[in-house]
Amino acid sequence: MIGVGLIGLGYWGPNLLRNFADLAGARVVCASDLRADRLSAAAARYPGIRTTCNAAELIQDPAVDAVAIATPVSTHFELAMAALAAGKHVLVEKPLASSCEEGRRLIEEAERRRLVLMVDHTFVYTGAVRKIAALVSSGELGDLYYYDSVRVNLGLFQHDVDVIWDLAVHDLSIMDHVLPLKPRAVSATGMSHVAGGHENIGYLTLFFENNFIAHMHVNWLAPVKIRRTLIGGSQRMIVYDDLEPSEKIKVYDRGITVNSNPENVHEMLVGYRSGDMWAPRLEATEALKTELAHFVDCVERGAKPITDGASGLRVLELVEAASESMASRGRLVELGARRATAR
Amino acid sequence: MIGVGLIGLGYWGPNLLRNFADLAGARVVCASDLRADRLSAAAARYPGIRTTCNAAELIQDPAVDAVAIATPVSTHFELAMAALAAGKHVLVEKPLASSCEEGRRLIEEAERRRLVLMVDHTFVYTGAVRKIAALVSSGELGDLYYYDSVRVNLGLFQHDVDVIWDLAVHDLSIMDHVLPLKPRAVSATGMSHVAGGHENIGYLTLFFENNFIAHMHVNWLAPVKIRRTLIGGSQRMIVYDDLEPSEKIKVYDRGITVNSNPENVHEMLVGYRSGDMWAPRLEATEALKTELAHFVDCVERGAKPITDGASGLRVLELVEAASESMASRGRLVELGARRATAR
Amino acid sequence: MIGVGLIGLGYWGPNLLRNFADLAGARVVCASDLRADRLSAAAARYPGIRTTCNAAELIQDPAVDAVAIATPVSTHFELAMAALAAGKHVLVEKPLASSCEEGRRLIEEAERRRLVLMVDHTFVYTGAVRKIAALVSSGELGDLYYYDSVRVNLGLFQHDVDVIWDLAVHDLSIMDHVLPLKPRAVSATGMSHVAGGHENIGYLTLFFENNFIAHMHVNWLAPVKIRRTLIGGSQRMIVYDDLEPSEKIKVYDRGITVNSNPENVHEMLVGYRSGDMWAPRLEATEALKTELAHFVDCVERGAKPITDGASGLRVLELVEAASESMASRGRLVELGARRATAR
Amino acid sequence: MIGVGLIGLGYWGPNLLRNFADLAGARVVCASDLRADRLSAAAARYPGIRTTCNAAELIQDPAVDAVAIATPVSTHFELAMAALAAGKHVLVEKPLASSCEEGRRLIEEAERRRLVLMVDHTFVYTGAVRKIAALVSSGELGDLYYYDSVRVNLGLFQHDVDVIWDLAVHDLSIMDHVLPLKPRAVSATGMSHVAGGHENIGYLTLFFENNFIAHMHVNWLAPVKIRRTLIGGSQRMIVYDDLEPSEKIKVYDRGITVNSNPENVHEMLVGYRSGDMWAPRLEATEALKTELAHFVDCVERGAKPITDGASGLRVLELVEAASESMASRGRLVELGARRATAR
Repeated sequence: MIGVGLIGLGYWGPNLLRNFADLAGARVVCASDLRADRLSAAAARYPGIRTTCNAAELIQDPAVDAVAIATPVSTHFELAMAALAAGKHVLVEKPLASSCEEGRRLIEEAERRRLVLMVDHTFVYTGAVRKIAALVSSGELGDLYYYDSVRVNLGLFQHDVDVIWDLAVHDLSIMDHVLPLKPRAVSATGMSHVAGGHENIGYLTLFFENNFIAHMHVNWLAPVKIRRTLIGGSQRMIVYDDLEPSEKIKVYDRGITVNSNPENVHEMLVGYRSGDMWAPRLEATEALKTELAHFVDCVERGAKPITDGASGLRVLELVEAASESMASRGRLVELGARRATAR
Repeated sequence: MIGVGLIGLGYWGPNLLRNFADLAGARVVCASDLRADRLSAAAARYPGIRTTCNAAELIQDPAVDAVAIATPVSTHFELAMAALAAGKHVLVEKPLASSCEEGRRLIEEAERRRLVLMVDHTFVYTGAVRKIAALVSSGELGDLYYYDSVRVNLGLFQHDVDVIWDLAVHDLSIMDHVLPLKPRAVSATGMSHVAGGHENIGYLTLFFENNFIAHMHVNWLAPVKIRRTLIGGSQRMIVYDDLEPSEKIKVYDRGITVNSNPENVHEMLVGYRSGDMWAPRLEATEALKTELAHFVDCVERGAKPITDGASGLRVLELVEAASESMASRGRLVELGARRATAR
Repeated sequence: MIGVGLIGLGYWGPNLLRNFADLAGARVVCASDLRADRLSAAAARYPGIRTTCNAAELIQDPAVDAVAIATPVSTHFELAMAALAAGKHVLVEKPLASSCEEGRRLIEEAERRRLVLMVDHTFVYTGAVRKIAALVSSGELGDLYYYDSVRVNLGLFQHDVDVIWDLAVHDLSIMDHVLPLKPRAVSATGMSHVAGGHENIGYLTLFFENNFIAHMHVNWLAPVKIRRTLIGGSQRMIVYDDLEPSEKIKVYDRGITVNSNPENVHEMLVGYRSGDMWAPRLEATEALKTELAHFVDCVERGAKPITDGASGLRVLELVEAASESMASRGRLVELGARRATAR
Repeated sequence: MIGVGLIGLGYWGPNLLRNFADLAGARVVCASDLRADRLSAAAARYPGIRTTCNAAELIQDPAVDAVAIATPVSTHFELAMAALAAGKHVLVEKPLASSCEEGRRLIEEAERRRLVLMVDHTFVYTGAVRKIAALVSSGELGDLYYYDSVRVNLGLFQHDVDVIWDLAVHDLSIMDHVLPLKPRAVSATGMSHVAGGHENIGYLTLFFENNFIAHMHVNWLAPVKIRRTLIGGSQRMIVYDDLEPSEKIKVYDRGITVNSNPENVHEMLVGYRSGDMWAPRLEATEALKTELAHFVDCVERGAKPITDGASGLRVLELVEAASESMASRGRLVELGARRATAR
């Protein structure tokens, strides 16, 4: 039985609390937050959990084997580093940290101390994303062409980060998980409509080694909620609509075939193929439940999580590059170059 | 009664033929195409129309007062210029020409000869776009924030132009018509998935004078058809879904209000507003019918069309800039600079 | 080459005219209507077709081998009978006639003279209905449980028939085609909301030999258009939504399994099964084109059409029984009894 | 502060528990269930609540002022009567009881003892149904024409009641609340597809004094979930789709106008009107929260609840009549006659 300390009882923390409560192999022994009312609410709902407004105290608690961090992004590094330093395994809400530099230091610390460092890329643990990953890796999409996602709604304006750090991180972590390809350069644009605020609209294009391309559209100020991803391949294409109550994943047997025109070598002949559509049944378990069980399992077995520090760092590299590109209105930022420089 | 000569009986030409046939003030007197079977099919359907495979002959026909051009883009300039030189009014399928330079010369020629030059931006004449224009100009959206359109499907790969020249022209012409603002710079990205082919995926970001931003996503290789535009304002937001059979336009009384926090001047307070949604009834007349009646009316009255040469040129400037930016993977192309240089 | 005479150029007739024009094996030689403007419009569009306001004259025309009838229901019998008497093959718009008695006489006349009598149950020739028929007859739905259709919109109020005679005929003809089962009794309800008018809302329940049940909902006065049919089986279930642009047919691998509870023989255990969904590609040919080709083929080969007089009569029996039941607010009308009496 | 005793911790009971916990004016002091594991789970979640497997003991508890009953239908009467007899206010899950006779006796007992008797018709307290009620009573729909609801999905087969007693009760309670009209007769049909089971498909038609008609379709064995109600009026029509995440209510300015033809008195002229659509913002509070606050308020003020015993009885009369009609395959059951006989 692993003892868990939970830091942060804002929007996401209570979900961690509820799911840890239903888990056999772990038990939340202590929860901390700066706000007294959050602590008393948690204590009332889950008697038996110790509460404290002092995160450092929680981290030092000998009953705490692992620390789950659900606080604002700017505090992730300091809290996670303190927990690792105290010999505790760590689960951090996304994104892993405020910068690649911070991310790298967390990874190094965890590796040195042989502790589990896991980032809470929740969508990776949904039935839908696991099915997409299986479809892509099976090769049945054929050559991979593009990844296009839209994640917009009238959403909570964050005070400390822009919409890319808030929303695109979800799409980048999904893409990182399902694609065998790695991005090489980023061009991003965006806009803020609030005086003194961060960008509330963002558009990212990611270029890859070959002619694969990815694009993400995120927006806190849309009148309707859209959560749709298209993945195009030469053989099949996927539509992933997270708002569909039951058929979130649709696989289309559609595409084109291209031939040279035998009568005119300069002209290509494009054929269009339209076949069946298929919506596979998806695993319905709550993603966070699957994820926390995986975290506990990794702690027990000393294994590397699916969404380990490295995956968190890859996402950070992309958002950092996107921020840099967005600041200069679409200027291409090479990922290799930045990494080389940064190291 | 205006005599019309129609050049081009491919995909779009027959629609012009059918709609001119139902129009009181005009009559197609001659049609031309290089393919004999297209001519005989037209002759069988519309006996009384003279047919020729020689466009020059059609242009010189004294019974022809106005020439409608529905041929590949690369031929627009030469045919339109010949028609203007022969003293004929001209209606050209979109885009107006292959380059800004060509577009400017057509405009100058038409002005010198006091002839009508109109570009067939069909969507501008739909009930939906006319309603959007009315809503925007009424001011009820408040401050304008963004324009975001998606136009994707498994579409016809064009041989002579890329997807921006084919599909984004629709969105650019709609945006040009409904917005009082003018773009200042473009950043575009895209990709070709066909060896030796043009880009079949394109993403355009347009920056404006203030903090307004526009984005367009066009794709010939999508598994599903999407035709959706979001227009965001501080007071109201519009969703325009051209695939909706009856409620194409939805107006949402949604948005945010931003205040400074009186207790903490560094912190803004964002309030969220969610009110009614309203789908206005739209005029159901076929857009092309409305458009051709407008063309005939402009010819008769010597008036300037809504989609005149200048609007065609503004769209050309944007696609040319987008192509330039796409070739260098998102590099910002200033519109003012280009225009200055080009002139 | 079969010579066709077309009677009736109202709403449906022009569709027949257009599709016959594209057909290789037949040619419309004569068209008739009581309204001169309809005749002149047809003559203008299709020069070479003789027109007449006298249907009797058309029927007697020696160039006419087959007569297509697209007139109000009340005239179907008289015109079809005259055509058969003149030795002409007949295609009648749905429903076949105004009563079962009339339907039976037409069938007898056609059989005696060895002429083709076909009823225009257009939906039977759509790719969607043909796919449903194939799925049902393959047995993969398992035991058949129910058929439930909804066909509502703000539709044209007919002057001579109620909504069941107008709209439910479509669903009854589809059901008749795809189901191997025959109905035994009908209970129908409905209402008129127009003084002196026919019922504009109708609900039909059809009982079958075993525990299969069918229900149809038709309505001319609905704010939205719905065209949805559910077909339930023990192994799979079909949703047929005719308004879906591409995936009209969805096959769901869903259902229940029922066992007796081994611990309590009085209690059943219901298990729920939820598998994949599958949307087969459908043939995209226009139904009317397929249907007319089939008519011409039957005339040429002397074969029985899929939608022959007998299928038209089975539908008439159901609508007659439904009308009788509706008049007494749902009273069960046995189909066997009625037929026995009527004969 | 009112002391509440909750009987039944199955599917619905925990929702009552959770909502009572968030309510200021009431406190659950005791909960009972026959299953020990349900009691221990409740005790763990809500320490401070006394638990017992003996409902009679709970009812007699002096700390209990009001009893909430969330048990199988067959036990509603006995438990509610015992609670009333002990002087406790009562909230019963729908339907009120197993028969009209039981319902009447509960109402009489509550009236004699001046206790609150409320039935848990939850949908009546949703923002959507409250908005529909306001729209109908405002008169802006014009003359009321019809009410048509569909409530189908692959749902839980109940062991003790059929699908009408399970699902149609929701629609009947909504209809009872929003309509100023009262039904006069019922015709119902249905079918069971499980040997020895209750009907899992049901169709109800309700006739009213004038030409208003209502119809309900309920089904436990549908491949997809549908929750859609159409309400037709001469001026406006409502579509209520409970599965829509944000626009559950749409009001259509559509309909017909009927005139006599001045040239032909026997012919009516039907005009079609198609105007705007409007989706009003809805109150987003959880229905059960609103409902329980109303219950507590009624107990405190001695007031009659919106969903009082009488509304529960009206629904029982309809389901009883529908069951009777369904057993004889659609035979019309007059509601007045039944009531007269029963009393």
